[in-house]
Amino acid sequence: MQLSPSLTQLIEALRCQPGIGPKSAQRIAFHLLERDRQGGKQLGQALTKAMTVVGHCQSCRTFTEQAQCDICASTKRQDSGLLCVVESPTDVLAIEQTGQYQGVYFVLMGHLSPIDGIGPKEIGLDILENKLQQGGINEVILATNPSVEGETTAHFIAELCHKYQVNASRIAHGIPVGGELDLVDGMTLMHAFTGRRTVSQL
Amino acid sequence: MQLSPSLTQLIEALRCQPGIGPKSAQRIAFHLLERDRQGGKQLGQALTKAMTVVGHCQSCRTFTEQAQCDICASTKRQDSGLLCVVESPTDVLAIEQTGQYQGVYFVLMGHLSPIDGIGPKEIGLDILENKLQQGGINEVILATNPSVEGETTAHFIAELCHKYQVNASRIAHGIPVGGELDLVDGMTLMHAFTGRRTVSQL
Repeated sequence: MQLSPSLTQLIEALRCQPGIGPKSAQRIAFHLLERDRQGGKQLGQALTKAMTVVGHCQSCRTFTEQAQCDICASTKRQDSGLLCVVESPTDVLAIEQTGQYQGVYFVLMGHLSPIDGIGPKEIGLDILENKLQQGGINEVILATNPSVEGETTAHFIAELCHKYQVNASRIAHGIPVGGELDLVDGMTLMHAFTGRRTVSQL
Repeated sequence: MQLSPSLTQLIEALRCQPGIGPKSAQRIAFHLLERDRQGGKQLGQALTKAMTVVGHCQSCRTFTEQAQCDICASTKRQDSGLLCVVESPTDVLAIEQTGQYQGVYFVLMGHLSPIDGIGPKEIGLDILENKLQQGGINEVILATNPSVEGETTAHFIAELCHKYQVNASRIAHGIPVGGELDLVDGMTLMHAFTGRRTVSQL
């Protein structure tokens, strides 16, 4: 049996999304057609609108509809002198959810990967260099992922910071809070040992 | 941190779909914005189009863009004299995938449920009654789900078939092929016993 072309097209388009397999795609399409056509139209409009209007913050490169995102526009945040470098806008969300960090961000939208043709310019390091040159930043916190590419990127940005006499720090990697030592992988355990800190005397 | 309004709206609209939680919704939205804006626009268009153009087959009530679906339009299918009654268009897909059934379908788009105000008219039994009256159907195969509502609906349609002297049969319920007897629930086991068949002598 051939499904109607529009329905096939919809299921195909849904199936390409992360976390949605062929069965889920079919389930969503039939659910919308059977029970929620209005919701389906709204989702369609939300998609089209978001893909069109959401751009990048000219200051930190995260997603925003304005020229500058809310965080970059806040003078309190700018005055903190802290700048946190992350790989993706979802990292910004994760850090913001802790409620502890009060500085601004810089979103690379990726990491250095010469093999894929991603050099310093592709991840906006020219914009970051301008920021460092302009001054007003006391410390750059490098929060890229602890992968080979993330570490390389962090190292590259640290060099850039030294050039402009700005402190650079790397977030700590080690045993997750609540994690069990024997269940943690070797790489994390190694990081936990090299990153050990002196316990101050009571 | 406040996400941009269009992005929040998109994540909310995705989150309402079956099988997509808040994390998946966020992941899909960011994936589309970061890597596949064109795909996002296409998905939006596919949704809007499907919600608008996909209607019901006037003959069997399944989803189609034409007045009649491919199965109902096939004279070979119509000549078989078999009509299979199912609850939803996904059931049609499942049966078609076996490749064994060569008759037409009738899709109820639900089941009888007086408590929710779903009577015979809401599940199109007036259309089915017309079909039975017109003749040309030798056997109605009742393939509604083995739930209380599904059984009631099957029973109701069987009565209707008797009224017009059309044979009605119910699909077999029992142990799934490859299933283990001690892992099957009591209700299925009971069905397997009541539905037992005489083994013919060799």
